[in-house]
Amino acid sequence: MSSKPICAPNPSFNRAREVRVSQDRSYEVQISGAKISDCLDTIVQWLDDKPALVVMTPTVASLYGMDLVARLEKHGAPVSAQILPCTESSKTLAAVELVCARAAELKLERRSLLIGLGGGVCTDIVTVAASLIRRGIRHIRIPTTLIGQVDAGIGIKGAVNFNGRKSYLGCFYPPHRVLILPHLLSTLSTDHLQDGIAEIIKIALVRDAVLLAQLEALPSHMLSYELRTNSSKAAELIWRSATGMLDELEPNLYEDKQSKRAVDFGHTFSPLIEAASGYSISHGSAVAMDMALTSILAEYCGLLSVAKRDRILTLLTTNRLPVWAPELDVNLCREALHAATLHRCGELNLVLPVNDGGVHYISSAGDITDPMFAHAVAYLKTLGRASTRLKPIGTEL
Amino acid sequence: MSSKPICAPNPSFNRAREVRVSQDRSYEVQISGAKISDCLDTIVQWLDDKPALVVMTPTVASLYGMDLVARLEKHGAPVSAQILPCTESSKTLAAVELVCARAAELKLERRSLLIGLGGGVCTDIVTVAASLIRRGIRHIRIPTTLIGQVDAGIGIKGAVNFNGRKSYLGCFYPPHRVLILPHLLSTLSTDHLQDGIAEIIKIALVRDAVLLAQLEALPSHMLSYELRTNSSKAAELIWRSATGMLDELEPNLYEDKQSKRAVDFGHTFSPLIEAASGYSISHGSAVAMDMALTSILAEYCGLLSVAKRDRILTLLTTNRLPVWAPELDVNLCREALHAATLHRCGELNLVLPVNDGGVHYISSAGDITDPMFAHAVAYLKTLGRASTRLKPIGTEL
Repeated sequence: MSSKPICAPNPSFNRAREVRVSQDRSYEVQISGAKISDCLDTIVQWLDDKPALVVMTPTVASLYGMDLVARLEKHGAPVSAQILPCTESSKTLAAVELVCARAAELKLERRSLLIGLGGGVCTDIVTVAASLIRRGIRHIRIPTTLIGQVDAGIGIKGAVNFNGRKSYLGCFYPPHRVLILPHLLSTLSTDHLQDGIAEIIKIALVRDAVLLAQLEALPSHMLSYELRTNSSKAAELIWRSATGMLDELEPNLYEDKQSKRAVDFGHTFSPLIEAASGYSISHGSAVAMDMALTSILAEYCGLLSVAKRDRILTLLTTNRLPVWAPELDVNLCREALHAATLHRCGELNLVLPVNDGGVHYISSAGDITDPMFAHAVAYLKTLGRASTRLKPIGTEL
Repeated sequence: MSSKPICAPNPSFNRAREVRVSQDRSYEVQISGAKISDCLDTIVQWLDDKPALVVMTPTVASLYGMDLVARLEKHGAPVSAQILPCTESSKTLAAVELVCARAAELKLERRSLLIGLGGGVCTDIVTVAASLIRRGIRHIRIPTTLIGQVDAGIGIKGAVNFNGRKSYLGCFYPPHRVLILPHLLSTLSTDHLQDGIAEIIKIALVRDAVLLAQLEALPSHMLSYELRTNSSKAAELIWRSATGMLDELEPNLYEDKQSKRAVDFGHTFSPLIEAASGYSISHGSAVAMDMALTSILAEYCGLLSVAKRDRILTLLTTNRLPVWAPELDVNLCREALHAATLHRCGELNLVLPVNDGGVHYISSAGDITDPMFAHAVAYLKTLGRASTRLKPIGTEL
């Protein structure tokens, strides 16, 4: 090519264009006191003749999952089933890949659906898989654990653990629908409910004095009994807790609007407690310890009366939630403040409960001293020795 | 537990709550006639002292990528480099995982960044990785190929191949910034530019008569020469094409608003041509054949004059783009209509060019008969024998 370029190179050529990316979606969270086998028409209607893959755990499959799939098939819905072990250690990209592989095999396309029928790990894996398949297909979540019904299964987050880092990979990806069936809790043991009970108490403490009063009005251990017997009272408590959680989440679903989040109450020290125990302490137990610790700090800071602090501690122990473990020491507390500051983009925003039922945010790690931690830890240690320490559930949810 | 539940189970308990999920973001696409080594200040400013991982191909690394990283480091930016083979066969979830693993190793957190410095495969892998890490971190794309600069690297889509299915897994995930540097094209061979030239011609045909006239005004083969010599003229053509593409994409970035997309011109038969050749025919070559085919169909349907049809065919062949290959037969055409109908959620929406420079959509596969395909294929076969057939690029981009 010998001809000269028509124009010479021009380093000063500079242009820019803004691209606006807007998205408005919505999804419906629904609760029903009915049995899952009585919800067939609803689910069939949601599927609208589109192919769907129901992902469930082995336990759920044998209890009612495979039965549901068979009934949906009888109703003419083109559904397939995938049984997936769902424990914290199998909450991996490999599990997501298994779901994607099954979806590819079934030739699921843009209008197809995934259904996550299981606990938080199951719905997390399904959420991430749905976000990736064909750049995002619809998914329905039917959480089968209490924590799934009031917390893990109702928002837009999904994540898996990666290279030893908890929830390092994931997505913000709204479901198509969420169906909460308190009846499913009747197959769970009392221990299985504890994680969710901790989250219900959290919501009551940070935003709902009525829910708090309802919880306190129940006789000792009665909450888990109500939940397992699928009473109307239990359904009301779950719905109140779930919608309270959604009210908190909705204005900041992508967690990009602000780093002050009331629902972070109980979630500053708990990640390190869980990790320090090698995940032998369950999430709900760690959250309970975190709430107990921050309640004592709040009292120490003059934000909470001694009476209110003791009401919180009593509510936790009455519901068989632990308030202390050997992992919870001053060093862990200090480290947790640094980790949370990093995690929340430079601002600690430690959530402390206050007298009127709202919350107060501590913005800097320097505002909490080691003697304050030492005081709180020592107090909990004394209290904790008298209370139960729960192990996490061994079976898959 | 012997006490009775306070309330009985109540199957008629039903409540529902709508959750609104809104997101408004924006990103800037910028073009500069400068060399990449003269853009250090700009990139350093974008990084804002946050840790960043620059992902690049081996070719880019040796040409200017590692030099860029060294210069950024000298400017005090906390950047690391990752060299990743980026071919169509390595466009996999495993490649995404490699980037995520490096990110985890470097402890990249929510405010960290990825930089994709490479062709479409590289920026696709980086986009998917960025969407997953900590549920989404920012990423900057610096596309190093022409197709990256006018098409693959400027929108919000990222994808990888999975279990033999092209782009089966991916995301819609906007970049933080896109930097288009036409100067980077100077290291590419003419063959490397062909894919991008096909997409520039596409944009000219579906929406930009001025761009079309500019392309037609260039002497034979002159476009690739302009592009490789980084002339101002080339930068203007690239910018015109890129912004034309963005104008088309912007109202429907998530492809959920409508399935009539002018930018699908050239992208109905081409996926099957590529697949049928075992990907030995490059994307741009397949797009060129598709545009040639649909132009003949458009003339046959009375939408395009013979003169305009021949202008299109001449523009393609002048730019050394192929218009026919043995893979392109009537069966493939018929299959492509079915596949596209499925892909576009039940509506074919085949894009045909029309006389005035706009497009016409054929909504049903039944509107194109096999004799029409036979006529078009025979015409192209005759024409194609006289024109070049390009092989895809063997080296990594």
